[in-house]
Amino acid sequence: MARRRRSRAGLGSERQALHLLSWRQVRNPFPPIAPLSDDEIEAIHRTSLRVLDELGMKVLDGETRSLLRAAGARVDETGEMVFMEAGLVEEAITTTPPDFTLHARNPARNIEVGGNAINFTPVGGPAFTSDLDKGRRAGTYAEFCDFVKLEQMFDVIHMMGVGAFASLDLPAETRHLDHGLAGFLYGDKAVPVNLLGGERASDGIELAKIALGLDERDLETTPCVLGNINTNSPRQLDGSMAQGLITLARANQPVVVTPFTLCGAMAPATVAGALVQQNAEALFGLALIQIVKPGAPGLYGGFTSNVDMKTGAPAFGTPEYVLACQATGQLTRRYRVPYRSSNTNASNAPDAQAAYESMMSLWGAIMGHANFLFHGAGWLEGGLVGSFEKLVIDAEMLQMMAVYLEGIRVDDDSLGFDAIAEVQPGGHYFGARHTLERYETAFYSPLLSDWRNFENWSDSGAVETAERAHRLWKRMLKEYQAPPIDPGIVDGLNDYIARRKEEILGP
Amino acid sequence: MARRRRSRAGLGSERQALHLLSWRQVRNPFPPIAPLSDDEIEAIHRTSLRVLDELGMKVLDGETRSLLRAAGARVDETGEMVFMEAGLVEEAITTTPPDFTLHARNPARNIEVGGNAINFTPVGGPAFTSDLDKGRRAGTYAEFCDFVKLEQMFDVIHMMGVGAFASLDLPAETRHLDHGLAGFLYGDKAVPVNLLGGERASDGIELAKIALGLDERDLETTPCVLGNINTNSPRQLDGSMAQGLITLARANQPVVVTPFTLCGAMAPATVAGALVQQNAEALFGLALIQIVKPGAPGLYGGFTSNVDMKTGAPAFGTPEYVLACQATGQLTRRYRVPYRSSNTNASNAPDAQAAYESMMSLWGAIMGHANFLFHGAGWLEGGLVGSFEKLVIDAEMLQMMAVYLEGIRVDDDSLGFDAIAEVQPGGHYFGARHTLERYETAFYSPLLSDWRNFENWSDSGAVETAERAHRLWKRMLKEYQAPPIDPGIVDGLNDYIARRKEEILGP
Repeated sequence: MARRRRSRAGLGSERQALHLLSWRQVRNPFPPIAPLSDDEIEAIHRTSLRVLDELGMKVLDGETRSLLRAAGARVDETGEMVFMEAGLVEEAITTTPPDFTLHARNPARNIEVGGNAINFTPVGGPAFTSDLDKGRRAGTYAEFCDFVKLEQMFDVIHMMGVGAFASLDLPAETRHLDHGLAGFLYGDKAVPVNLLGGERASDGIELAKIALGLDERDLETTPCVLGNINTNSPRQLDGSMAQGLITLARANQPVVVTPFTLCGAMAPATVAGALVQQNAEALFGLALIQIVKPGAPGLYGGFTSNVDMKTGAPAFGTPEYVLACQATGQLTRRYRVPYRSSNTNASNAPDAQAAYESMMSLWGAIMGHANFLFHGAGWLEGGLVGSFEKLVIDAEMLQMMAVYLEGIRVDDDSLGFDAIAEVQPGGHYFGARHTLERYETAFYSPLLSDWRNFENWSDSGAVETAERAHRLWKRMLKEYQAPPIDPGIVDGLNDYIARRKEEILGP
Repeated sequence: MARRRRSRAGLGSERQALHLLSWRQVRNPFPPIAPLSDDEIEAIHRTSLRVLDELGMKVLDGETRSLLRAAGARVDETGEMVFMEAGLVEEAITTTPPDFTLHARNPARNIEVGGNAINFTPVGGPAFTSDLDKGRRAGTYAEFCDFVKLEQMFDVIHMMGVGAFASLDLPAETRHLDHGLAGFLYGDKAVPVNLLGGERASDGIELAKIALGLDERDLETTPCVLGNINTNSPRQLDGSMAQGLITLARANQPVVVTPFTLCGAMAPATVAGALVQQNAEALFGLALIQIVKPGAPGLYGGFTSNVDMKTGAPAFGTPEYVLACQATGQLTRRYRVPYRSSNTNASNAPDAQAAYESMMSLWGAIMGHANFLFHGAGWLEGGLVGSFEKLVIDAEMLQMMAVYLEGIRVDDDSLGFDAIAEVQPGGHYFGARHTLERYETAFYSPLLSDWRNFENWSDSGAVETAERAHRLWKRMLKEYQAPPIDPGIVDGLNDYIARRKEEILGP
């Protein structure tokens, strides 16, 4: 299945020509931007605990309600409502690990989650795909695999995607198995799981066990399957999400709890109010994880944005979104829980709006000290589309942020007094020794940006960014090489999937 | 000359439809991002003082060398070199005002410079203009006036431009007079001056005196003409720049000193080294201002970026650029001197690259706590073009940043407990009292971004951002109204300019 048309050495030289940033654990060494005072954070915290105690959460899953009742929550079975006192919530979340390592089938692709580490993931969840050739459309599994190959090729992306778009030529009931297989075959980074229900969660766990060669006991100490649940905001946890959470938590696998709090629609029409509701729902989910299995990894997902109040249309990368991202970072640091944010935008094309809204999201997430940037590359149309061109544009932006976060080296050599002494007033540094020593690696080399002057750019066709991104992903697919994988593992994955498809779809 | 086709009331309602953010003094309430430690800042400071003492600056102006010699500098007249000891520089700059008010002919448009205030200016200095209809070209004065009218209409822009592009249908020797006139006639914000030589500086001062109704003594206490000089990096101050600086400083008018330190070309190929050289040249200019007139306002201009080491092409909005912006903020705060940064990019089209590079610049400048963002709107092609579409795209980005910097309101009402109580689990807030109370003003309303869903966007022509920006500035020009101005002032400006044109060009 893997195309192996070129030698490693050959690929290496092409990669350099493509200016793909090499794999690295990105960290944010700078203090976060904190838009709220400590008192304001406490006000949000206290009000959110009051929501859980006095207003409660509706939980559409009997097993979950039983677990919570046993832990001390007040449950109204008729209304399917669960109420938790502040002390119960605050006590439960204390066992959440502040950091952990997420394991990939290639140990060189393991990533740290927590502290000042930040990890970028591809877009996950859109229904559709788009590219400049074929436009917006229902995607196929072949196209999905192409997207996965690109996810793998960008080393600045730290995890495979949970599904950049739906493969609409495959049955919906078993599509998650094919998507998981593609992640393990075409990539060697950690493969997340779709948490729509306990069965999908356990399929993800089983595939990861095969791919990483883990038994049940290994799994207990090896976080390797990360999943995300959304609350059905306001204040509702659906059954499939609850079961997905429980399945992963019981296996000691990390669950992200992300309230879907769009100000003015599913949350109050103020950022503070939406943060209260987000915090209530996130703490509820994080407490549930610890009640299921104390010490299981849980992450706080922030997704508060706003709608256009005139039309109800969701908006992303707005000023309010950025503020919510950075304030959410303050809340997660208060709880010492890893933080997931996103790279979002509401544009319908990979144009200037897509770029500036995404950039706003990036600065919100990164300076909010998110540990995971979900939808890091490829998101378009408010998350309805996984775009091939946006994937490349985002990869460029992520590469820029990764280099930015490396900061400035300051030592005698970099301060460059001797270099300054070497160059005459009004002269230039092109031939200076100090320059020549750094010729190849001095600065970030762009993947996509075109820095040529107007005349050269025009003479070569005046190709704008989106079209350059289009050409770039097409070239990359031609150069793709599958990472090595043990044939026994491939057989194991295929056997498991064949068996499961028969169970689900029938023979 | 001013078109007065509509009533004030009429303009007001259209402005609301256009979602132009209302005039405000933007402030940054958040702590700055500081990429360097205090020790690293001190290392850059000390090394830069060593550059001024041991290596010196070449100064191509005899009067300037005399002034500096009289102040205690060592001067080598043969080599036109000036050397300043650390103590001399450090002592001189202490009289720089940490803040001041820049006055406009409309006092409601006065702006604060210093502290946590940040002001956005239009692009200044490009040779060419461009728009989507006519492409890239030499601009005319009529087109220049159109650009000025747009500068005035965007309230998020705090100053008129120094020249968005050259009016190439006007004589070069007197073009600055026409440009100045356009600023005062079509706008009511502060009008800066081109500092290429003492004569242009004094023309700017005279026009401002007429427009603001100031005599010589008023001028002394009324900063109203701001100019920028660039050092001819490395380590050279040209005669025209020196004379521009001296002319403005003698009139107690603010001068920005901006070294042109592109790493690898006019500065060392390290950010730290370029910052050393930038700091040496900036401190030299700031010291010169105080030596000319103690207490005259001076600003530290940061413009350190890098070149593409393969081609020598200048790059902007790069990771290195952002780091340099934020580190420069640390240096300016150390000296308690106001800080000027820029909104730059190297794109040849108003596309995704233009947007993401500009966004990087904005976050560098704003989180570096710049007090002035030069080239805030309209810069394209690394500063060679003043673009009508980029002006609109930038205005949207500046509006977003201005709203972001207003932070999050947190009080009982915004925390919204009652609103959360009002909405059932899984319900929505569209009809909630809390929402209806905030319907009109809850969130930022975009000027340019299109948040409609794909179907609506497609049905209305699938118009991308740059084309929307094009339509928007054309609509705005139709709606432009000149701000009121006393006819006596108009006569005074015209008389001065007529006299000066005769002096310069002959009768």
